[in-house]
Amino acid sequence: MHPPKLTLRQLRALLHKMPFNRSVGIHITKVHKDGVTIEIPMRDDLLNGAGVLHGGVTATIADVAVGMAIMHHFGGTRQATTVELKINYFRPISAGRVAARSRLLRIGSHLVIGSVDIRDEGKNSVGFAIVTYMLLEAATPQSTSGPATLRK
Amino acid sequence: MHPPKLTLRQLRALLHKMPFNRSVGIHITKVHKDGVTIEIPMRDDLLNGAGVLHGGVTATIADVAVGMAIMHHFGGTRQATTVELKINYFRPISAGRVAARSRLLRIGSHLVIGSVDIRDEGKNSVGFAIVTYMLLEAATPQSTSGPATLRK
Amino acid sequence: MHPPKLTLRQLRALLHKMPFNRSVGIHITKVHKDGVTIEIPMRDDLLNGAGVLHGGVTATIADVAVGMAIMHHFGGTRQATTVELKINYFRPISAGRVAARSRLLRIGSHLVIGSVDIRDEGKNSVGFAIVTYMLLEAATPQSTSGPATLRK
Amino acid sequence: MHPPKLTLRQLRALLHKMPFNRSVGIHITKVHKDGVTIEIPMRDDLLNGAGVLHGGVTATIADVAVGMAIMHHFGGTRQATTVELKINYFRPISAGRVAARSRLLRIGSHLVIGSVDIRDEGKNSVGFAIVTYMLLEAATPQSTSGPATLRK
Repeated sequence: MHPPKLTLRQLRALLHKMPFNRSVGIHITKVHKDGVTIEIPMRDDLLNGAGVLHGGVTATIADVAVGMAIMHHFGGTRQATTVELKINYFRPISAGRVAARSRLLRIGSHLVIGSVDIRDEGKNSVGFAIVTYMLLEAATPQSTSGPATLRK
Repeated sequence: MHPPKLTLRQLRALLHKMPFNRSVGIHITKVHKDGVTIEIPMRDDLLNGAGVLHGGVTATIADVAVGMAIMHHFGGTRQATTVELKINYFRPISAGRVAARSRLLRIGSHLVIGSVDIRDEGKNSVGFAIVTYMLLEAATPQSTSGPATLRK
Repeated sequence: MHPPKLTLRQLRALLHKMPFNRSVGIHITKVHKDGVTIEIPMRDDLLNGAGVLHGGVTATIADVAVGMAIMHHFGGTRQATTVELKINYFRPISAGRVAARSRLLRIGSHLVIGSVDIRDEGKNSVGFAIVTYMLLEAATPQSTSGPATLRK
Repeated sequence: MHPPKLTLRQLRALLHKMPFNRSVGIHITKVHKDGVTIEIPMRDDLLNGAGVLHGGVTATIADVAVGMAIMHHFGGTRQATTVELKINYFRPISAGRVAARSRLLRIGSHLVIGSVDIRDEGKNSVGFAIVTYMLLEAATPQSTSGPATLRK
């Protein structure tokens, strides 16, 4: 009854189709039962004026971590769009890799809510986010022949 | 008693020093009494998998719009870092310029809270954000000789 | 095509049917084009341990201010339920009346988002909230014969 | 070096001193290493117009759950005030007890952030909140002789 979940390989292919994710350098590293883990390596062009990771990059990976969890959960059969994102920044990140682990907290008929635990390379908690996606109307059979997309 | 406010030209110079803002293509277009207006033109590398502006980009401009309003307000004399950001996405943006107008709602001794009204080129409201910055300890006289920075 | 908006009198009757709003002492004082103003007088049983208004009371009036704006907008014909609420507290409130002015920022087909500007008796800004309601499925003709309700 | 943590009995005494918490019927049921669990039984005067728990009550218990976790953590030696609260409502609660389990996610020198997992009597997840408190300046020795208070 449920569609088969996407594999890590399929999620990587999907993620790679999203231009901004590719620009920022996001890649997916693990698939969990209730979410995914994605990572970015620090790069000079992702910094702010104080030489630490720009808050917009951290918000981007929070958004993507929940989006990928939804793609995984629905086997890529449902489109979804971010309707709300809230993030708390705990401390600046100045080097290494940043990892974001998402967990779906609630899967409703219209809204899906996920949390994101963000950690630096030393496993220190550097932020926490709650992201809400709205599921778009289930596609009619003929329109699902194309690839699933994630509107975010 | 209050430091002189930064001019549009000074804010532009500051913004340009922030690598990620430059990558994304943010520029500041207006300075208001209580905030600023910044803009980005749409570019293919800022899109998500559905061909609309990535939510992470919109979060980035919300963050920057409040950060710049704080730099303006304090005349560049105080460092500040984003501690929290919340954004509601109203509708997808697929073309044209995106403008973010910030307003400082509360300037406390530690926290500064600003709202951001985000509109597309047709002036349609496409999102709304509330961003909280924490002011870092006021620098001692000798340490303020360097340029002001915005840790975000 | 649009249902007639509810009058102040009709909104008062609706508000009065909600037990917790009556317990807390909320009343509606004005109807605006894009929202409403509601108020509560301070009372000893609404305080926290430090002798100021409990944050839960402020969150309550933010929630109600947007809910009433939605009832007003749809003429009481649509049911809605709060799906998300975010509030920033700017300063403690220790006496007098508290007023909450809501504004509908976005009226979508599923979600309605409103802002709430909260002020003390001296018109000082004491908080700001963003509240999201989900519209429940439009009732079928026969089921709308009963009174409109606000599930919050 | 750290002050001794408060016992369940001491936290109960503190909670009981807060008028609105008493009005709403909140009691603390467990103390954990990283937070507390508080509960309220449903009562008719806590309902909204649709006969389910008012969203303001749920926000109240989220606020209190993090406040009590902070009192516990600091052994009642620090005053703190809520600066921000965000709550997602997953489903309506119509009967039984509601439990809120808080966890401190980040304890900074100025800000403390906690999450709250809210469940109904059947252990169903009914909501999730993130609450930020600001620690007030540490009291000088002579001023700490009085009872600790929680400004919320």
